[in-house]
Amino acid sequence: MTPADRAQLALLYEVAATPTPGNVDRERDLADLRFGQFLAGAVGARPGLRAAARTGEAAPGVGVAFERAVGGMADAAGTNTQFGALLLLAPLVRTAAAAESLTPENVSAVVEGTTVADAAAFYRAFEHVDVFVGDPPTDAEPLDVRRGADAVSAVEERGVSLTAVLELGAEEDGVAAEWTRGFPRTFRVTDRLVDGHGPLPDRAARAFLAELAAEPDTLVAGRHGDRVAREVSDRAAALTAADGDSDAVRAFAADLVARGVNPGTTADIVAAGLFVALDRGAGGGGA
Amino acid sequence: MTPADRAQLALLYEVAATPTPGNVDRERDLADLRFGQFLAGAVGARPGLRAAARTGEAAPGVGVAFERAVGGMADAAGTNTQFGALLLLAPLVRTAAAAESLTPENVSAVVEGTTVADAAAFYRAFEHVDVFVGDPPTDAEPLDVRRGADAVSAVEERGVSLTAVLELGAEEDGVAAEWTRGFPRTFRVTDRLVDGHGPLPDRAARAFLAELAAEPDTLVAGRHGDRVAREVSDRAAALTAADGDSDAVRAFAADLVARGVNPGTTADIVAAGLFVALDRGAGGGGA
Repeated sequence: MTPADRAQLALLYEVAATPTPGNVDRERDLADLRFGQFLAGAVGARPGLRAAARTGEAAPGVGVAFERAVGGMADAAGTNTQFGALLLLAPLVRTAAAAESLTPENVSAVVEGTTVADAAAFYRAFEHVDVFVGDPPTDAEPLDVRRGADAVSAVEERGVSLTAVLELGAEEDGVAAEWTRGFPRTFRVTDRLVDGHGPLPDRAARAFLAELAAEPDTLVAGRHGDRVAREVSDRAAALTAADGDSDAVRAFAADLVARGVNPGTTADIVAAGLFVALDRGAGGGGA
Repeated sequence: MTPADRAQLALLYEVAATPTPGNVDRERDLADLRFGQFLAGAVGARPGLRAAARTGEAAPGVGVAFERAVGGMADAAGTNTQFGALLLLAPLVRTAAAAESLTPENVSAVVEGTTVADAAAFYRAFEHVDVFVGDPPTDAEPLDVRRGADAVSAVEERGVSLTAVLELGAEEDGVAAEWTRGFPRTFRVTDRLVDGHGPLPDRAARAFLAELAAEPDTLVAGRHGDRVAREVSDRAAALTAADGDSDAVRAFAADLVARGVNPGTTADIVAAGLFVALDRGAGGGGA
Protein backbone atom coordinates (compact mmCIF):
# COMPACT_ATOMS: atom_id res chain seq x y z
CA MET A 1 0.00 0.00 0.00
CA THR A 2 1.14 3.52 -0.78
CA PRO A 3 0.82 6.47 1.62
CA ALA A 4 -2.29 7.59 -0.30
CA ASP A 5 -3.79 4.10 0.13
CA ARG A 6 -3.10 4.17 3.85
CA ALA A 7 -4.62 7.64 4.18
CA GLN A 8 -7.74 6.46 2.38
CA LEU A 9 -7.97 3.37 4.57
CA ALA A 10 -7.50 5.53 7.68
CA LEU A 11 -10.55 7.59 6.64
CA LEU A 12 -12.55 4.40 6.07
CA TYR A 13 -11.51 2.76 9.35
CA GLU A 14 -12.29 5.96 11.26
CA VAL A 15 -15.88 6.11 10.05
CA ALA A 16 -16.29 2.33 10.47
CA ALA A 17 -15.03 2.43 14.08
CA THR A 18 -18.00 2.07 16.41
CA PRO A 19 -19.15 3.40 18.76
CA THR A 20 -17.60 6.85 18.30
CA PRO A 21 -20.17 8.75 20.37
CA GLY A 22 -21.73 11.73 18.60
CA ASN A 23 -20.23 10.95 15.21
CA VAL A 24 -21.33 9.04 12.14
CA ASP A 25 -20.06 5.50 12.51
CA ARG A 26 -20.84 2.00 11.33
CA GLU A 27 -23.93 1.92 13.55
CA ARG A 28 -25.18 5.49 13.34
CA ASP A 29 -26.01 8.21 10.80
CA LEU A 30 -26.66 11.81 11.79
CA ALA A 31 -29.71 13.70 10.55
CA ASP A 32 -27.80 15.45 7.78
CA LEU A 33 -24.76 13.22 7.37
CA ARG A 34 -24.75 9.58 6.32
CA PHE A 35 -22.20 6.78 6.47
CA GLY A 36 -22.23 6.35 2.68
CA GLN A 37 -21.23 9.99 2.26
CA PHE A 38 -18.04 9.32 4.22
CA LEU A 39 -17.26 6.36 1.96
CA ALA A 40 -17.76 8.59 -1.09
CA GLY A 41 -15.66 11.34 0.53
CA ALA A 42 -12.79 8.92 1.07
CA VAL A 43 -12.89 7.96 -2.61
CA GLY A 44 -13.23 11.54 -3.84
CA ALA A 45 -10.34 12.77 -1.67
CA ARG A 46 -7.94 10.39 -3.30
CA PRO A 47 -6.41 12.59 -6.03
CA GLY A 48 -5.57 15.14 -3.35
CA LEU A 49 -4.08 12.46 -1.12
CA ARG A 50 -1.98 11.30 -4.05
CA ALA A 51 -0.83 14.88 -4.59
CA ALA A 52 0.13 15.03 -0.91
CA ALA A 53 2.22 11.88 -1.44
CA ARG A 54 4.27 13.42 -4.24
CA THR A 55 7.87 14.28 -3.54
CA GLY A 56 10.62 16.31 -5.17
CA GLU A 57 10.80 19.81 -6.59
CA ALA A 58 7.64 19.58 -8.68
CA ALA A 59 5.42 18.31 -5.86
CA PRO A 60 2.50 20.62 -5.02
CA GLY A 61 2.54 22.17 -1.56
CA VAL A 62 0.65 20.34 1.16
CA GLY A 63 -1.93 23.13 1.31
CA VAL A 64 -2.49 22.80 -2.43
CA ALA A 65 -2.83 19.01 -2.08
CA PHE A 66 -5.23 19.55 0.83
CA GLU A 67 -7.45 21.83 -1.26
CA ARG A 68 -7.55 19.23 -4.02
CA ALA A 69 -8.53 16.55 -1.50
CA VAL A 70 -11.32 18.72 -0.08
CA GLY A 71 -12.64 19.56 -3.53
CA GLY A 72 -12.78 15.89 -4.51
CA MET A 73 -14.32 14.93 -1.18
CA ALA A 74 -17.03 17.59 -1.48
CA ASP A 75 -17.87 16.61 -5.07
CA ALA A 76 -18.19 12.93 -4.17
CA ALA A 77 -19.89 13.26 -0.78
CA GLY A 78 -22.03 16.28 -1.54
CA THR A 79 -21.14 17.75 1.83
CA ASN A 80 -18.28 18.19 4.29
CA THR A 81 -17.34 14.80 5.65
CA GLN A 82 -13.59 14.84 6.30
CA PHE A 83 -12.23 18.42 6.09
CA GLY A 84 -10.36 18.34 9.40
CA ALA A 85 -9.06 14.80 8.90
CA LEU A 86 -7.68 15.77 5.48
CA LEU A 87 -6.00 18.85 6.97
CA LEU A 88 -4.14 16.55 9.35
CA LEU A 89 -3.47 13.88 6.74
CA ALA A 90 -1.93 16.20 4.11
CA PRO A 91 1.33 16.91 6.00
CA LEU A 92 1.42 13.39 7.49
CA VAL A 93 1.15 11.82 4.02
CA ARG A 94 3.83 14.15 2.68
CA THR A 95 6.11 13.22 5.56
CA ALA A 96 5.51 9.49 5.08
CA ALA A 97 6.35 9.86 1.38
CA ALA A 98 9.28 12.27 1.62
CA ALA A 99 11.00 11.83 4.97
CA GLU A 100 13.01 8.93 6.29
CA SER A 101 10.43 8.21 8.95
CA LEU A 102 7.09 9.55 10.10
CA THR A 103 8.05 11.28 13.36
CA PRO A 104 6.74 14.42 15.08
CA GLU A 105 10.02 16.16 14.17
CA ASN A 106 9.75 15.32 10.49
CA VAL A 107 6.09 16.28 10.18
CA SER A 108 6.89 19.55 11.98
CA ALA A 109 9.54 20.25 9.36
CA VAL A 110 6.96 19.70 6.60
CA VAL A 111 4.52 22.00 8.37
CA GLU A 112 7.20 24.67 8.80
CA GLY A 113 7.92 24.50 5.08
CA THR A 114 4.41 25.60 4.04
CA THR A 115 4.14 28.76 1.97
CA VAL A 116 1.82 31.62 1.13
CA ALA A 117 0.56 29.52 -1.80
CA ASP A 118 -0.45 26.80 0.68
CA ALA A 119 -2.25 29.39 2.77
CA ALA A 120 -4.09 30.70 -0.28
CA ALA A 121 -5.14 27.14 -1.22
CA PHE A 122 -6.35 26.57 2.33
CA TYR A 123 -8.66 29.58 2.06
CA ARG A 124 -9.92 28.38 -1.30
CA ALA A 125 -10.74 25.01 0.29
CA PHE A 126 -13.49 26.74 2.29
CA GLU A 127 -15.25 27.53 -0.97
CA HIS A 128 -15.95 23.80 -1.47
CA VAL A 129 -17.73 23.17 1.82
CA ASP A 130 -19.55 24.55 4.79
CA VAL A 131 -17.17 24.24 7.75
CA PHE A 132 -17.87 25.42 11.26
CA VAL A 133 -15.31 28.04 12.32
CA GLY A 134 -15.29 30.44 15.28
CA ASP A 135 -14.35 34.13 15.26
CA PRO A 136 -10.70 35.00 14.54
CA PRO A 137 -8.68 37.40 16.73
CA THR A 138 -9.79 41.01 15.98
CA ASP A 139 -6.58 42.06 14.26
CA ALA A 140 -6.80 38.97 12.04
CA GLU A 141 -10.26 39.65 10.63
CA PRO A 142 -8.96 40.01 7.05
CA LEU A 143 -7.66 36.46 7.49
CA ASP A 144 -10.99 35.05 8.68
CA VAL A 145 -11.30 31.71 6.89
CA ARG A 146 -15.02 32.30 6.50
CA ARG A 147 -14.11 34.89 3.87
CA GLY A 148 -12.85 31.98 1.74
CA ALA A 149 -11.14 33.04 -1.49
CA ASP A 150 -11.85 36.70 -0.61
CA ALA A 151 -9.15 36.45 2.05
CA VAL A 152 -6.51 35.35 -0.46
CA SER A 153 -5.38 38.89 -1.26
CA ALA A 154 -4.92 39.62 2.47
CA VAL A 155 -2.94 36.40 2.78
CA GLU A 156 -0.68 37.39 -0.08
CA GLU A 157 -0.25 40.97 1.12
CA ARG A 158 0.75 39.87 4.59
CA GLY A 159 2.87 37.02 3.22
CA VAL A 160 1.61 34.49 5.75
CA SER A 161 2.28 30.78 5.41
CA LEU A 162 -0.37 28.15 6.02
CA THR A 163 1.24 27.34 9.35
CA ALA A 164 1.08 31.02 10.34
CA VAL A 165 -2.63 31.03 9.48
CA LEU A 166 -3.26 27.91 11.55
CA GLU A 167 -1.35 29.39 14.49
CA LEU A 168 -4.08 32.04 14.64
CA GLY A 169 -6.61 29.29 15.35
CA ALA A 170 -4.54 26.93 17.50
CA GLU A 171 -6.14 28.04 20.77
CA GLU A 172 -9.66 27.40 19.52
CA ASP A 173 -9.26 24.51 17.14
CA GLY A 174 -7.77 21.14 17.93
CA VAL A 175 -6.78 20.44 14.32
CA ALA A 176 -4.86 23.71 14.04
CA ALA A 177 -3.24 22.94 17.40
CA GLU A 178 -1.98 19.60 16.06
CA TRP A 179 -0.39 21.32 13.06
CA THR A 180 1.45 23.87 15.09
CA ARG A 181 2.50 21.74 18.08
CA GLY A 182 4.00 18.64 16.49
CA PHE A 183 0.84 16.49 16.29
CA PRO A 184 1.01 15.36 19.95
CA ARG A 185 -2.51 13.93 20.12
CA THR A 186 -2.18 12.20 16.75
CA PHE A 187 0.93 10.32 17.91
CA ARG A 188 -0.69 9.57 21.26
CA VAL A 189 -3.60 7.95 19.39
CA THR A 190 -1.10 6.05 17.24
CA ASP A 191 0.56 4.60 20.34
CA ARG A 192 -2.80 3.44 21.65
CA LEU A 193 -3.67 1.86 18.30
CA VAL A 194 -0.33 0.10 17.89
CA ASP A 195 -0.42 -1.22 21.46
CA GLY A 196 -4.07 -2.30 21.23
CA HIS A 197 -5.49 -5.66 20.24
CA GLY A 198 -8.32 -6.79 17.99
CA PRO A 199 -9.28 -5.41 14.58
CA LEU A 200 -7.99 -1.88 13.98
CA PRO A 201 -11.46 -0.26 13.71
CA ASP A 202 -12.27 -1.65 17.19
CA ARG A 203 -9.02 -0.24 18.57
CA ALA A 204 -9.91 3.08 16.95
CA ALA A 205 -13.25 3.22 18.75
CA ARG A 206 -11.51 2.74 22.11
CA ALA A 207 -8.87 5.32 21.18
CA PHE A 208 -11.64 7.77 20.25
CA LEU A 209 -13.24 7.48 23.68
CA ALA A 210 -9.90 7.78 25.46
CA GLU A 211 -8.97 10.86 23.44
CA LEU A 212 -12.38 12.44 24.01
CA ALA A 213 -11.84 11.84 27.74
CA ALA A 214 -8.35 13.33 27.61
CA GLU A 215 -9.27 16.67 25.99
CA PRO A 216 -12.53 18.51 25.39
CA ASP A 217 -13.49 18.47 21.71
CA THR A 218 -12.95 21.91 20.17
CA LEU A 219 -15.75 21.52 17.63
CA VAL A 220 -18.17 20.83 20.47
CA ALA A 221 -16.74 23.79 22.43
CA GLY A 222 -17.11 26.10 19.43
CA ARG A 223 -20.70 25.10 18.74
CA HIS A 224 -22.07 24.40 22.21
CA GLY A 225 -19.67 26.17 24.58
CA ASP A 226 -16.87 25.03 26.88
CA ARG A 227 -19.24 23.74 29.54
CA VAL A 228 -20.83 21.19 27.18
CA ALA A 229 -17.42 20.19 25.81
CA ARG A 230 -16.14 19.54 29.34
CA GLU A 231 -19.28 17.62 30.28
CA VAL A 232 -18.84 15.38 27.23
CA SER A 233 -15.20 14.75 28.14
CA ASP A 234 -16.08 13.97 31.74
CA ARG A 235 -18.67 11.43 30.65
CA ALA A 236 -16.19 9.87 28.22
CA ALA A 237 -13.67 9.65 31.07
CA ALA A 238 -16.18 7.91 33.34
CA LEU A 239 -16.96 5.41 30.57
CA THR A 240 -13.28 4.81 29.84
CA ALA A 241 -12.70 4.14 33.54
CA ALA A 242 -15.64 1.68 33.57
CA ASP A 243 -13.92 -0.02 30.58
CA GLY A 244 -15.94 -2.16 28.28
CA ASP A 245 -19.52 -1.43 29.32
CA SER A 246 -20.58 -1.12 25.72
CA ASP A 247 -24.26 -0.53 26.53
CA ALA A 248 -23.33 2.57 28.52
CA VAL A 249 -21.12 3.81 25.66
CA ARG A 250 -23.98 3.24 23.21
CA ALA A 251 -26.41 5.15 25.46
CA PHE A 252 -23.89 8.02 25.56
CA ALA A 253 -23.65 7.92 21.76
CA ALA A 254 -27.43 8.01 21.37
CA ASP A 255 -27.67 10.95 23.79
CA LEU A 256 -25.04 12.99 21.94
CA VAL A 257 -26.72 12.33 18.58
CA ALA A 258 -30.10 13.38 20.03
CA ARG A 259 -28.57 16.64 21.30
CA GLY A 260 -26.69 17.32 18.06
CA VAL A 261 -23.34 17.19 19.87
CA ASN A 262 -20.69 16.04 17.38
CA PRO A 263 -17.09 15.64 18.63
CA GLY A 264 -15.73 15.87 15.10
CA THR A 265 -12.28 17.17 15.99
CA THR A 266 -11.59 14.08 18.07
CA ALA A 267 -12.64 11.94 15.08
CA ASP A 268 -10.25 13.89 12.84
CA ILE A 269 -7.38 13.18 15.21
CA VAL A 270 -8.29 9.48 15.34
CA ALA A 271 -8.19 9.34 11.52
CA ALA A 272 -4.73 10.93 11.60
CA GLY A 273 -3.58 8.49 14.30
CA LEU A 274 -4.90 5.60 12.19
CA PHE A 275 -2.81 6.76 9.25
CA VAL A 276 0.37 6.80 11.32
CA ALA A 277 -0.52 3.40 12.85
CA LEU A 278 -1.02 1.92 9.36
CA ASP A 279 2.30 3.45 8.33
CA ARG A 280 3.87 1.57 11.25
CA GLY A 281 2.36 -1.70 10.10
CA ALA A 282 -0.62 -1.95 12.45
CA GLY A 283 -3.64 -3.62 10.89
CA GLY A 284 -1.64 -5.46 8.24
CA GLY A 285 -3.52 -8.15 6.35
CA GLY A 286 -6.91 -6.92 7.48
CA ALA A 287 -6.25 -7.21 11.23
CA MET B 1 -14.52 10.43 -10.46
CA THR B 2 -12.67 8.04 -12.71
CA PRO B 3 -13.87 4.52 -13.58
CA ALA B 4 -11.44 3.13 -10.96
CA ASP B 5 -12.93 5.49 -8.35
CA ARG B 6 -16.44 4.37 -9.23
CA ALA B 7 -15.43 0.71 -9.04
CA GLN B 8 -13.91 1.28 -5.61
CA LEU B 9 -17.01 3.13 -4.43
CA ALA B 10 -19.21 0.32 -5.77
CA LEU B 11 -17.30 -2.16 -3.60
CA LEU B 12 -17.70 0.12 -0.58
CA TYR B 13 -21.41 0.76 -1.15
CA GLU B 14 -22.03 -2.96 -1.64
CA VAL B 15 -20.58 -3.91 1.73
CA ALA B 16 -22.24 -0.91 3.42
CA ALA B 17 -25.67 -1.83 2.01
CA THR B 18 -27.75 -3.38 4.79
CA PRO B 19 -29.40 -5.75 5.27
CA THR B 20 -27.90 -8.05 2.66
CA PRO B 21 -28.96 -11.32 4.28
CA GLY B 22 -26.15 -13.82 4.78
CA ASN B 23 -23.37 -11.44 3.82
CA VAL B 24 -21.08 -9.08 5.68
CA ASP B 25 -22.74 -5.70 5.71
CA ARG B 26 -22.80 -2.49 7.74
CA GLU B 27 -24.66 -4.27 10.54
CA ARG B 28 -23.12 -7.72 10.46
CA ASP B 29 -19.74 -9.50 10.42
CA LEU B 30 -19.37 -13.21 9.71
CA ALA B 31 -17.32 -15.47 11.98
CA ASP B 32 -14.28 -15.37 9.72
CA LEU B 33 -14.92 -12.24 7.68
CA ARG B 34 -15.18 -8.70 8.99
CA PHE B 35 -16.49 -5.43 7.57
CA GLY B 36 -13.10 -3.74 7.96
CA GLN B 37 -11.52 -6.40 5.76
CA PHE B 38 -13.84 -5.42 2.92
CA LEU B 39 -12.80 -1.78 3.35
CA ALA B 40 -9.14 -2.82 3.19
CA GLY B 41 -9.87 -5.06 0.18
CA ALA B 42 -11.44 -2.13 -1.70
CA VAL B 43 -8.33 -0.04 -1.06
CA GLY B 44 -5.92 -2.85 -1.93
CA ALA B 45 -7.75 -3.69 -5.18
CA ARG B 46 -7.22 -0.21 -6.50
CA PRO B 47 -4.03 -0.63 -8.56
CA GLY B 48 -5.72 -3.50 -10.38
CA LEU B 49 -8.85 -1.44 -10.96
CA ARG B 50 -6.68 1.32 -12.36
CA ALA B 51 -5.01 -1.21 -14.65
CA ALA B 52 -8.49 -2.28 -15.80
CA ALA B 53 -9.24 1.37 -16.61
CA ARG B 54 -6.26 1.71 -18.92
CA THR B 55 -6.90 1.98 -22.64
CA GLY B 56 -4.87 1.73 -25.83
CA GLU B 57 -2.35 -0.74 -27.13
CA ALA B 58 -0.23 -0.90 -23.98
CA ALA B 59 -3.16 -1.57 -21.64
CA PRO B 60 -2.91 -4.88 -19.76
CA GLY B 61 -5.61 -7.44 -20.53
CA VAL B 62 -8.64 -7.45 -18.26
CA GLY B 63 -7.58 -10.83 -16.84
CA VAL B 64 -4.17 -9.41 -16.00
CA ALA B 65 -5.79 -6.37 -14.37
CA PHE B 66 -8.12 -8.69 -12.48
CA GLU B 67 -5.23 -10.71 -11.08
CA ARG B 68 -3.52 -7.53 -9.92
CA ALA B 69 -6.74 -6.42 -8.21
CA VAL B 70 -7.11 -9.76 -6.44
CA GLY B 71 -3.48 -9.74 -5.31
CA GLY B 72 -3.82 -6.25 -3.85
CA MET B 73 -7.14 -7.11 -2.24
CA ALA B 74 -5.72 -10.26 -0.62
CA ASP B 75 -2.65 -8.44 0.69
CA ALA B 76 -4.73 -5.67 2.23
CA ALA B 77 -7.66 -7.72 3.53
CA GLY B 78 -5.73 -10.82 4.52
CA THR B 79 -8.45 -12.98 2.98
CA ASN B 80 -10.82 -13.23 0.02
CA THR B 81 -13.33 -10.44 0.27
CA GLN B 82 -14.22 -9.40 -3.28
CA PHE B 83 -12.91 -11.98 -5.80
CA GLY B 84 -16.17 -12.41 -7.70
CA ALA B 85 -17.01 -8.71 -7.64
CA LEU B 86 -13.60 -7.89 -9.10
CA LEU B 87 -14.06 -10.50 -11.82
CA LEU B 88 -17.22 -8.69 -12.88
CA LEU B 89 -15.75 -5.22 -12.43
CA ALA B 90 -12.63 -5.78 -14.55
CA PRO B 91 -14.39 -5.93 -17.94
CA LEU B 92 -17.01 -3.36 -16.87
CA VAL B 93 -14.30 -0.87 -15.88
CA ARG B 94 -12.44 -1.51 -19.14
CA THR B 95 -15.63 -0.92 -21.11
CA ALA B 96 -16.41 2.29 -19.20
CA ALA B 97 -12.90 3.55 -19.91
CA ALA B 98 -12.52 2.40 -23.50
CA ALA B 99 -15.95 2.21 -25.14
CA GLU B 100 -18.33 4.97 -26.06
CA SER B 101 -20.87 3.76 -23.55
CA LEU B 102 -21.22 1.03 -20.94
CA THR B 103 -23.74 -1.27 -22.64
CA PRO B 104 -24.17 -5.06 -22.59
CA GLU B 105 -22.97 -5.12 -26.22
CA ASN B 106 -19.80 -3.19 -25.48
CA VAL B 107 -18.88 -5.19 -22.39
CA SER B 108 -19.51 -8.38 -24.36
CA ALA B 109 -17.03 -7.17 -26.97
CA VAL B 110 -14.43 -6.61 -24.21
CA VAL B 111 -15.10 -10.08 -22.83
CA GLU B 112 -14.78 -11.63 -26.31
CA GLY B 113 -11.42 -9.93 -26.70
CA THR B 114 -9.80 -11.74 -23.78
CA THR B 115 -6.75 -13.86 -24.53
CA VAL B 116 -4.79 -16.85 -23.30
CA ALA B 117 -2.67 -14.45 -21.24
CA ASP B 118 -5.85 -13.28 -19.48
CA ALA B 119 -6.78 -16.90 -18.81
CA ALA B 120 -3.33 -17.60 -17.37
CA ALA B 121 -3.60 -14.55 -15.11
CA PHE B 122 -7.03 -15.71 -13.97
CA TYR B 123 -5.55 -19.04 -12.85
CA ARG B 124 -2.74 -17.26 -11.07
CA ALA B 125 -5.31 -15.16 -9.19
CA PHE B 126 -6.38 -18.31 -7.35
CA GLU B 127 -2.91 -18.47 -5.80
CA HIS B 128 -3.68 -15.31 -3.81
CA VAL B 129 -6.84 -16.50 -2.10
CA ASP B 130 -9.00 -19.38 -1.04
CA VAL B 131 -12.06 -19.33 -3.31
CA PHE B 132 -14.88 -21.83 -3.26
CA VAL B 133 -15.17 -23.59 -6.61
CA GLY B 134 -17.10 -26.70 -7.62
CA ASP B 135 -15.88 -29.60 -9.77
CA PRO B 136 -15.17 -28.83 -13.44
CA PRO B 137 -16.57 -30.98 -16.30
CA THR B 138 -14.54 -34.23 -16.48
CA ASP B 139 -12.84 -33.44 -19.78
CA ALA B 140 -11.79 -30.06 -18.37
CA GLU B 141 -9.95 -31.35 -15.31
CA PRO B 142 -6.58 -29.97 -16.45
CA LEU B 143 -8.32 -26.57 -16.47
CA ASP B 144 -9.66 -26.92 -12.92
CA VAL B 145 -9.13 -23.49 -11.37
CA ARG B 146 -8.28 -25.16 -8.08
CA ARG B 147 -5.00 -26.17 -9.70
CA GLY B 148 -4.10 -22.45 -9.75
CA ALA B 149 -0.86 -21.65 -11.55
CA ASP B 150 -0.35 -25.39 -12.20
CA ALA B 151 -3.12 -25.17 -14.78
CA VAL B 152 -1.38 -22.43 -16.74
CA SER B 153 0.53 -24.84 -18.99
CA ALA B 154 -2.73 -26.62 -19.87
CA VAL B 155 -4.32 -23.23 -20.63
CA GLU B 156 -1.47 -22.31 -22.91
CA GLU B 157 -1.39 -25.72 -24.63
CA ARG B 158 -5.09 -25.63 -25.35
CA GLY B 159 -4.96 -21.94 -26.27
CA VAL B 160 -8.11 -21.05 -24.36
CA SER B 161 -9.11 -17.47 -23.67
CA LEU B 162 -10.40 -16.30 -20.28
CA THR B 163 -13.91 -16.21 -21.68
CA ALA B 164 -13.55 -19.82 -22.89
CA VAL B 165 -12.46 -20.81 -19.38
CA LEU B 166 -15.42 -19.05 -17.80
CA GLU B 167 -17.81 -20.71 -20.25
CA LEU B 168 -16.82 -24.00 -18.63
CA GLY B 169 -18.24 -22.72 -15.34
CA ALA B 170 -21.22 -20.72 -16.56
CA GLU B 171 -23.78 -23.38 -15.62
CA GLU B 172 -22.55 -23.61 -12.04
CA ASP B 173 -21.36 -20.12 -11.28
CA GLY B 174 -23.38 -16.93 -11.53
CA VAL B 175 -20.33 -14.72 -12.03
CA ALA B 176 -19.09 -16.82 -14.96
CA ALA B 177 -22.62 -16.76 -16.38
CA GLU B 178 -22.63 -12.94 -16.31
CA TRP B 179 -19.34 -12.83 -18.24
CA THR B 180 -20.50 -15.13 -20.97
CA ARG B 181 -24.10 -13.97 -21.36
CA GLY B 182 -23.82 -10.19 -21.59
CA PHE B 183 -24.12 -9.34 -17.87
CA PRO B 184 -27.95 -9.57 -17.82
CA ARG B 185 -28.33 -9.62 -14.04
CA THR B 186 -25.80 -6.81 -13.57
CA PHE B 187 -27.77 -4.52 -15.87
CA ARG B 188 -31.04 -5.59 -14.26
CA VAL B 189 -29.63 -4.54 -10.89
CA THR B 190 -28.47 -1.27 -12.45
CA ASP B 191 -32.00 -0.53 -13.64
CA ARG B 192 -33.36 -1.12 -10.14
CA LEU B 193 -30.70 1.13 -8.63
CA VAL B 194 -31.18 3.94 -11.11
CA ASP B 195 -34.98 3.83 -10.74
CA GLY B 196 -34.83 3.60 -6.93
CA HIS B 197 -34.97 6.35 -4.37
CA GLY B 198 -33.03 7.14 -1.21
CA PRO B 199 -29.29 6.80 -0.64
CA LEU B 200 -27.61 4.40 -3.06
CA PRO B 201 -26.54 1.87 -0.36
CA ASP B 202 -30.21 1.59 0.70
CA ARG B 203 -31.26 1.01 -2.89
CA ALA B 204 -28.53 -1.62 -3.15
CA ALA B 205 -29.91 -3.53 -0.16
CA ARG B 206 -33.35 -3.68 -1.79
CA ALA B 207 -31.80 -4.70 -5.12
CA PHE B 208 -29.87 -7.47 -3.35
CA LEU B 209 -33.05 -8.96 -1.93
CA ALA B 210 -34.87 -8.69 -5.26
CA GLU B 211 -31.99 -10.35 -7.09
CA LEU B 212 -31.71 -13.10 -4.50
CA ALA B 213 -35.44 -13.69 -4.97
CA ALA B 214 -35.08 -13.74 -8.75
CA GLU B 215 -32.35 -16.40 -8.98
CA PRO B 216 -30.87 -18.93 -6.54
CA ASP B 217 -27.38 -17.94 -5.46
CA THR B 218 -24.80 -20.21 -7.09
CA LEU B 219 -22.33 -19.95 -4.19
CA VAL B 220 -25.05 -21.19 -1.83
CA ALA B 221 -25.97 -23.95 -4.29
CA GLY B 222 -22.33 -25.03 -4.60
CA ARG B 223 -21.76 -25.17 -0.87
CA HIS B 224 -25.13 -26.25 0.49
CA GLY B 225 -26.92 -27.77 -2.50
CA ASP B 226 -29.69 -26.65 -4.84
CA ARG B 227 -32.43 -27.26 -2.31
CA VAL B 228 -31.00 -24.77 0.17
CA ALA B 229 -30.31 -22.23 -2.58
CA ARG B 230 -33.94 -22.47 -3.72
CA GLU B 231 -35.25 -22.22 -0.16
CA VAL B 232 -33.19 -19.03 0.36
CA SER B 233 -34.54 -17.54 -2.87
CA ASP B 234 -38.11 -18.43 -1.96
CA ARG B 235 -37.77 -16.73 1.41
CA ALA B 236 -36.24 -13.67 -0.24
CA ALA B 237 -39.17 -13.60 -2.67
CA ALA B 238 -41.69 -13.75 0.17
CA LEU B 239 -39.92 -10.87 1.93
CA THR B 240 -39.74 -8.84 -1.27
CA ALA B 241 -43.47 -9.33 -1.74
CA ALA B 242 -44.12 -8.22 1.85
CA ASP B 243 -42.04 -5.12 1.00
CA GLY B 244 -40.40 -3.16 3.73
CA ASP B 245 -40.90 -5.38 6.79
CA SER B 246 -37.34 -4.74 7.85
CA ASP B 247 -37.62 -6.80 11.05
CA ALA B 248 -38.47 -9.88 9.00
CA VAL B 249 -35.56 -9.21 6.64
CA ARG B 250 -33.23 -8.85 9.63
CA ALA B 251 -34.46 -12.11 11.10
CA PHE B 252 -33.80 -13.80 7.74
CA ALA B 253 -30.27 -12.29 7.75
CA ALA B 254 -29.59 -13.53 11.28
CA ASP B 255 -30.83 -17.02 10.35
CA LEU B 256 -28.58 -17.24 7.26
CA VAL B 257 -25.55 -16.08 9.23
CA ALA B 258 -26.28 -18.66 11.95
CA ARG B 259 -26.47 -21.41 9.30
CA GLY B 260 -23.34 -20.21 7.47
CA VAL B 261 -25.33 -19.58 4.30
CA ASN B 262 -23.63 -16.80 2.36
CA PRO B 263 -25.19 -15.65 -0.94
CA GLY B 264 -21.93 -14.13 -2.10
CA THR B 265 -22.58 -14.38 -5.83
CA THR B 266 -25.64 -12.18 -5.50
CA ALA B 267 -23.51 -9.63 -3.61
CA ASP B 268 -20.92 -9.71 -6.41
CA ILE B 269 -23.61 -8.94 -8.97
CA VAL B 270 -24.96 -6.08 -6.83
CA ALA B 271 -21.43 -4.59 -6.68
CA ALA B 272 -21.23 -4.80 -10.47
CA GLY B 273 -24.67 -3.21 -10.83
CA LEU B 274 -23.60 -0.42 -8.46
CA PHE B 275 -20.62 0.32 -10.68
CA VAL B 276 -22.80 0.66 -13.77
CA ALA B 277 -25.32 2.78 -11.84
CA LEU B 278 -22.53 5.12 -10.65
CA ASP B 279 -21.31 5.29 -14.25
CA ARG B 280 -24.81 6.45 -15.20
CA GLY B 281 -24.73 9.19 -12.58
CA ALA B 282 -26.78 7.55 -9.83
CA GLY B 283 -25.69 8.54 -6.34
CA GLY B 284 -23.96 11.73 -7.42
CA GLY B 285 -22.97 14.10 -4.63
CA GLY B 286 -23.34 11.47 -1.95
CA ALA B 287 -27.01 10.63 -2.65
